[in-house]
Amino acid sequence: MPDLTDVVAQIARDMARAETRGTVASYIPELAKVDPRQFGICVIDHDGKVHAAGDADVPFSIQSVSKVFTLTMALGKVGDQIWTRVGREPSGNPFNSIVQLEREAGIPRNPFINAGAIVVSDILLEGHKPREAIGSILSFVRDLADDQTIIVDSAVARSETQTGFRNVALANYMRAFGNLQNAPELTLGVYFHQCAISMSCRQLATAVQFLAHDGFNPAVGRRVVSSERARRIAALMLTCGHYDGSGDFAFQVGIPGKSGVGGGIIAVVPGKAAIAVWSPGLNKVGNSLLGAVALERLTRAMNWSIFASR
Amino acid sequence: MPDLTDVVAQIARDMARAETRGTVASYIPELAKVDPRQFGICVIDHDGKVHAAGDADVPFSIQSVSKVFTLTMALGKVGDQIWTRVGREPSGNPFNSIVQLEREAGIPRNPFINAGAIVVSDILLEGHKPREAIGSILSFVRDLADDQTIIVDSAVARSETQTGFRNVALANYMRAFGNLQNAPELTLGVYFHQCAISMSCRQLATAVQFLAHDGFNPAVGRRVVSSERARRIAALMLTCGHYDGSGDFAFQVGIPGKSGVGGGIIAVVPGKAAIAVWSPGLNKVGNSLLGAVALERLTRAMNWSIFASR
Amino acid sequence: MPDLTDVVAQIARDMARAETRGTVASYIPELAKVDPRQFGICVIDHDGKVHAAGDADVPFSIQSVSKVFTLTMALGKVGDQIWTRVGREPSGNPFNSIVQLEREAGIPRNPFINAGAIVVSDILLEGHKPREAIGSILSFVRDLADDQTIIVDSAVARSETQTGFRNVALANYMRAFGNLQNAPELTLGVYFHQCAISMSCRQLATAVQFLAHDGFNPAVGRRVVSSERARRIAALMLTCGHYDGSGDFAFQVGIPGKSGVGGGIIAVVPGKAAIAVWSPGLNKVGNSLLGAVALERLTRAMNWSIFASR
Amino acid sequence: MPDLTDVVAQIARDMARAETRGTVASYIPELAKVDPRQFGICVIDHDGKVHAAGDADVPFSIQSVSKVFTLTMALGKVGDQIWTRVGREPSGNPFNSIVQLEREAGIPRNPFINAGAIVVSDILLEGHKPREAIGSILSFVRDLADDQTIIVDSAVARSETQTGFRNVALANYMRAFGNLQNAPELTLGVYFHQCAISMSCRQLATAVQFLAHDGFNPAVGRRVVSSERARRIAALMLTCGHYDGSGDFAFQVGIPGKSGVGGGIIAVVPGKAAIAVWSPGLNKVGNSLLGAVALERLTRAMNWSIFASR
Repeated sequence: MPDLTDVVAQIARDMARAETRGTVASYIPELAKVDPRQFGICVIDHDGKVHAAGDADVPFSIQSVSKVFTLTMALGKVGDQIWTRVGREPSGNPFNSIVQLEREAGIPRNPFINAGAIVVSDILLEGHKPREAIGSILSFVRDLADDQTIIVDSAVARSETQTGFRNVALANYMRAFGNLQNAPELTLGVYFHQCAISMSCRQLATAVQFLAHDGFNPAVGRRVVSSERARRIAALMLTCGHYDGSGDFAFQVGIPGKSGVGGGIIAVVPGKAAIAVWSPGLNKVGNSLLGAVALERLTRAMNWSIFASR
Repeated sequence: MPDLTDVVAQIARDMARAETRGTVASYIPELAKVDPRQFGICVIDHDGKVHAAGDADVPFSIQSVSKVFTLTMALGKVGDQIWTRVGREPSGNPFNSIVQLEREAGIPRNPFINAGAIVVSDILLEGHKPREAIGSILSFVRDLADDQTIIVDSAVARSETQTGFRNVALANYMRAFGNLQNAPELTLGVYFHQCAISMSCRQLATAVQFLAHDGFNPAVGRRVVSSERARRIAALMLTCGHYDGSGDFAFQVGIPGKSGVGGGIIAVVPGKAAIAVWSPGLNKVGNSLLGAVALERLTRAMNWSIFASR
Repeated sequence: MPDLTDVVAQIARDMARAETRGTVASYIPELAKVDPRQFGICVIDHDGKVHAAGDADVPFSIQSVSKVFTLTMALGKVGDQIWTRVGREPSGNPFNSIVQLEREAGIPRNPFINAGAIVVSDILLEGHKPREAIGSILSFVRDLADDQTIIVDSAVARSETQTGFRNVALANYMRAFGNLQNAPELTLGVYFHQCAISMSCRQLATAVQFLAHDGFNPAVGRRVVSSERARRIAALMLTCGHYDGSGDFAFQVGIPGKSGVGGGIIAVVPGKAAIAVWSPGLNKVGNSLLGAVALERLTRAMNWSIFASR
Repeated sequence: MPDLTDVVAQIARDMARAETRGTVASYIPELAKVDPRQFGICVIDHDGKVHAAGDADVPFSIQSVSKVFTLTMALGKVGDQIWTRVGREPSGNPFNSIVQLEREAGIPRNPFINAGAIVVSDILLEGHKPREAIGSILSFVRDLADDQTIIVDSAVARSETQTGFRNVALANYMRAFGNLQNAPELTLGVYFHQCAISMSCRQLATAVQFLAHDGFNPAVGRRVVSSERARRIAALMLTCGHYDGSGDFAFQVGIPGKSGVGGGIIAVVPGKAAIAVWSPGLNKVGNSLLGAVALERLTRAMNWSIFASR
């Protein structure tokens, strides 16, 4: 078995000089400004040792990576009732597709496509003001990452609010089917702010540790969710975590992960590692191009796979 | 940890008297005749010990379970070239949908929906006569199961040939896009016969062992595929093995599996167990209703999950 | 040839006591309050003689009937440039479908489905404030109907603004593709108000006369559009005027018409008659049930059809 | 009013030297051999006078133009029962789309898309052998055209049989839904042969005269269908006769027509003219490019439109 620190460092070096880096998301103007030459990686092993390299401490917009955290919160708030309003199946469509909603009466296929995550935000908003809901999400993420300095990037949130027409369409469409409880603009306020949370690879790897350890976050010595729930969230990440590239990610990388259009990906090797990688350029299905390459390199080097016998 | 033999026996008893048993597939007349009151289970643990109960030795039509075996063969024959003709993504549609083919120029989404499996059969047929291709498949399966008595049920094959209009449509549609190399009726001849192979749970559990052991089949002391290929096939099973119920199966059961409309399901817990269950009644997405329930019971009782830390 | 006055009167009597009357549109709360027992009809023949019966003078919400008037205005404003932003093909989908927009990059199939009419409203809004655009539309319709008392029903406009989530979705979706020039809420403001115009059958029959006379409105002695444009608008009404029931309407009734979910239908027999009918109950594709029956009765009795040799 | 003979001659001259001629259908090998430089036109006016020019006497493969004739026959055989098996709505999809069939349980949207025409062939086949059904169709068309020399081009029929995989898919797909009564290969035998009928513009214009004269064919002095049925067939031609270009054809040309991938189009101006044009090059929705241009020129020059007051 190679040394993890060496592997991580080598990957960071290789990714730093990779020529094909994908395309930075352009539909959110604020994200389009990000320098595509960045790459960060952080791996926390089962002993809690942190292996970081490259731009591992540069904060970036976590975008859809936040969906893992809000789903975890919503499950805590309403339990399995969530599944009456959102499905658990891969969508077979792009992340912002509205076609499926029309076919299936406003029920999004899973909580990791935009429509599904908006429903999750709507659940978190119920009984609260948007400001409170956003505060709760931020607080939850700070606790997971054991870092109270994490903030929402208000320029990104504003940019999304001004240009997120597809998400406005999705929210209103679901509202027409009765699958939003709050005014679409309020629910979207929560959603856009959770997407605009800024975190570094180091913070994200810490925050996702609970999914590598059956629901227990060793960084803070606290159980986040039950063992069963942790497994189920990880299962959803594997089948739905990379939009219409989820099957390919499972095939190539072989571990549960969740990507965001900011270029971040979080992933876990149960019992072995919590991982975050980041590179802003995306492939054609909207996932970090170098992030996926780095994860494939890492899992291959370390012989990590949830489909392996060890 | 409970005793596996006890768990298996208890599940078989409970399933035998379950009242809700789903609906036997009716679109293949020969399958519609099967008695829905049957249930079989066989689990082979990491020591090779066989735990069987119920109708574990009754042969049934393996149908789409065969797709795992033919995919394995096709990968052996043409390697990764297969992925130019079939995708690796969940379909988001029923198993026999033709809609996706029109959208995506005749390239099936994955090798476990009917269209994808027909392409796989077409690959196996190339350079051979249908009789030879069928013979090779049967021979491969017999070797995996270490049982030369396995046969094709010719009544089922005939029944499918006479009534499989949707599959004829799928094959001709792909032929129109140039994604079949052989005459559709010949490729379908291979496909219908592989689906009509009859096997018992015991035979299937033995045959799928190689996917629980990184490509090595301990029953016959032989490597079937490389470790990497075994993981990748298992990854496809997890994301695409239960048609439009794959996400739910991953969520509820948490291990890779592949179902067939004959009511069989094969599944593996890497490093721990190879499993086959069978009950003819299907749920609304076309998977064995009691088979899925039994697998959920089994994995919960044994604390088996590819998303767990142990 | 039967006497038109008699035919119209007999139809009104029969429709008044018809038992199957369809279902009043419920998705706009204000419309759901309308009494379904009403029926009105008005036919203006080629001599300008008015044949009215039943509730021909009761104003109702014209809803999508307004799309004929706004399309006429938009063609006057931008001419054939409109066709770069909206198509001319039947949609093969319900009136408020969003699926087609995703497939065809935000270009609605025709100006008579909601998405297309919203683009038309957006064109009329360009260079104006919403209040001005609404004023222009109202003014145009008043002139066509030669009746300055026509108003917008503000309760209906408000009701649509509060509940028209699907239309909000459509507008934002097209905005995401760059096919709206104005802020979606402003364009929708225009759209919701044009839909909320209240008119009687008598007023509508007068207003649509120009399409029966090659673009010339004899009621006011004024040319509205060129002969060619009048024919083209009528052609669009025939192929697209009844949503996904357009083919059936052409088949059964045989003349160009445009329906609205308020239960109104306008129609023309070129050179012979301008017609408006109204009954609030809708059939399953969203067109006035008795309105269509009455038009079929009328055209059959008078032997009117654009497909006939006379 | 210009002289019709002059107009027709001028159009033929202009079309003969047009540079943009579209693309000859390539998916039927035999059709791909046709010289794209040909253009024919024939107009029969209300006095029965024939105005022909260009290649008006060159026989070509009528392909989907045949659907008008077989629909007429099927209506004669089973009357309105046909509408339980095929719809009357524009499809909003390409001519050979299979998507709509999956959505709508095997019921084609209208009798002029391939799937619908195959159902019509199936109806004509019932109670007969394929050879008899083909004979009846040929006999019916010969009588309409008053020309017993019309034949089926067996090379084209064979070519379609060997390569018509999409049509085989459509037929089998409908068979799976129970919407074909005969074996798919037999129904397709009829369908492929009707498509392979060879006719010239002169023959086609004669054959379609009955739709210009309320069901009466003056060429043979015989009523073909009732006045109402003639109108209804013409209505279907207007809404569905040019596949997903039907709305555009109605808008630009303004009269009912039916095109075929052989490059022919038949059309009628009720009470005024029966028309056939032919040019092998197709536009992107599969209709004769120059044929449509010629018809637009003709109707504009003669001021013909079913939407005009005269």
